[in-house]
Amino acid sequence: MSEPLLVRAARGESVERLPVWFMRQAGRFLPEYREVRSKHSFLEMCATPELALEVSLQPLRRFELDGSIIFSDIMTPLLACGVEMDFAPGPVIAKPIRTMADVQALEIPDEGHIGVPTVQAIRMLRQAVDPKVAVIGFAGAPLTLAAYLVEGRGGKDFSALRAFLYAEPEAAHLLFNKLAVLTGRYLRAQVAAGAQMVQLFDSWAGILSADTYRTFALPAVKKVWSMLESTHVSKVFFAQASAHLLPLVTSTEACVFGFDWRLSIDEVRAQVGPNMVLQGNLDPAMLRAPEPVLRAATRAMLKQTRGGPHIVNVGHGLQPETPIDSLHVVIDEVRSHVFF
Amino acid sequence: MSEPLLVRAARGESVERLPVWFMRQAGRFLPEYREVRSKHSFLEMCATPELALEVSLQPLRRFELDGSIIFSDIMTPLLACGVEMDFAPGPVIAKPIRTMADVQALEIPDEGHIGVPTVQAIRMLRQAVDPKVAVIGFAGAPLTLAAYLVEGRGGKDFSALRAFLYAEPEAAHLLFNKLAVLTGRYLRAQVAAGAQMVQLFDSWAGILSADTYRTFALPAVKKVWSMLESTHVSKVFFAQASAHLLPLVTSTEACVFGFDWRLSIDEVRAQVGPNMVLQGNLDPAMLRAPEPVLRAATRAMLKQTRGGPHIVNVGHGLQPETPIDSLHVVIDEVRSHVFF
Repeated sequence: MSEPLLVRAARGESVERLPVWFMRQAGRFLPEYREVRSKHSFLEMCATPELALEVSLQPLRRFELDGSIIFSDIMTPLLACGVEMDFAPGPVIAKPIRTMADVQALEIPDEGHIGVPTVQAIRMLRQAVDPKVAVIGFAGAPLTLAAYLVEGRGGKDFSALRAFLYAEPEAAHLLFNKLAVLTGRYLRAQVAAGAQMVQLFDSWAGILSADTYRTFALPAVKKVWSMLESTHVSKVFFAQASAHLLPLVTSTEACVFGFDWRLSIDEVRAQVGPNMVLQGNLDPAMLRAPEPVLRAATRAMLKQTRGGPHIVNVGHGLQPETPIDSLHVVIDEVRSHVFF
Repeated sequence: MSEPLLVRAARGESVERLPVWFMRQAGRFLPEYREVRSKHSFLEMCATPELALEVSLQPLRRFELDGSIIFSDIMTPLLACGVEMDFAPGPVIAKPIRTMADVQALEIPDEGHIGVPTVQAIRMLRQAVDPKVAVIGFAGAPLTLAAYLVEGRGGKDFSALRAFLYAEPEAAHLLFNKLAVLTGRYLRAQVAAGAQMVQLFDSWAGILSADTYRTFALPAVKKVWSMLESTHVSKVFFAQASAHLLPLVTSTEACVFGFDWRLSIDEVRAQVGPNMVLQGNLDPAMLRAPEPVLRAATRAMLKQTRGGPHIVNVGHGLQPETPIDSLHVVIDEVRSHVFF
């Protein structure tokens, strides 16, 4: 039997219609998610395969989606390295990394010992979903993990991370290298468990200049992808707020480049040419607009997908305030969209 | 006697050396600032002309600066509109603006009743500083004010503001128009009090797509500048994370375009041509690096100022962790820099 539409589309194969999934589709906008969440902490949900499976399946019961992304958090693989953290609600690191000694102390476990509950949940998810639906694994890109590890918590522009890169370049290189190995091993385990597509989230790509991104962040992303080469999994690189980094973030050797609502699909297409598979980029805030506005915005986005292979998604994770019907509107528009 | 170097440079006149000042030079990196702050709340400092004057003067006692920016906060003019807010430490709005009725209820006072303590502090500052030092006034750009007013507090990407723009375009237009009038009046009062240069901070420019920025944010900035036309003051427009908006943010009819560390000066210069005055863009996090690294980065930046008229600054406000000596290093490099 043939592979899921999303997987074939991610490879750039010619497909019967545009695939669609939503970042953070398993999340707080669903009452059934909030029901589970009311009984368990966020970390508990990530650490319990049955709970992660349940909330990953929830959106599939309501919507005709082409992908099922595993419920987890980009920070969870770091638990295996002994990093102490809490969610309040964003990640808070007990002991931020600031020195070479801190980086050296970070232990990177073997493949079988990273994000074990998430890997197990992926195995169960692959069994549970319709084979037409692609199972999507994910991880944080090394830069984005480093941003939290060094800053200690979320921020606007992670100035402590930037200061660390400038002041301690050797320690920074070692940190990015370790995080790349961690992420590569973690994603290999996800693929072995059944993930057919994996996405690297570089949510904080935009905080660095091109020079600094090229020096520290890009080689680490390429290293992650090189560790997955033998698996033939479809690789998606999602970089936020990266207009000033476009030549870099589109050269990571991923199969798919994902981006947010700040750039238009046409602009990105003009820069990358007709062959690269793109993913995005409806503003998740647009899903809070009245139906006619959302429908028009979705159509305008779909019009821009003519320039080359495309996977429809939001440009960033769905917001808790998203009305459920908004997903029906977008999916309806995508499924009824006629090429040319 | 001739006008201050900074004012002449901002007009694009040929000047004897590069001018330099630092965003948030009156701030937490100075122990004498923290001393004042330990005795007064942030809002109290903004509301008391003598205190605002004192902390504005503090950096001038230590450093050879070409400009003296008044100590205040972009949110303070909103106090005159009856907006209740607190700083915790970022602004928190008691009743966020979400509907047309909320926007209609926002009253914009006359010129003489907006930011009165700040305007008074500018009058005192102009008397107090060496006439070679330019007095700099400032305000938040309408988009950035709207972001806090609608979201209710600081955020990563102000999704409530974006949702408001999409769902309530008429209310949004009215809000931006009111904020432009408020800001125009406020800056006019600052100029009348002695500000020789004024900067509009569009710290959150980067959260919108070009289409949305063009529709809502840009006309409001142009309106502010048009209200200042008769004053002949030097106008600086600072837009953060705006690589995807460059043709828009460089077309506001300001005299000077300021930007952050994400873009290189060479890149921006290539886009705007040889005549526009640029301002920036050392990463404030770079001022936390060891002296040789900082010195090299400053020289690399100075090398890029060859393409056209330039005002040296950081690409974003100085961080509390900035060592005092770092400013001496940067100023030393700028003052000893030889053109060509």
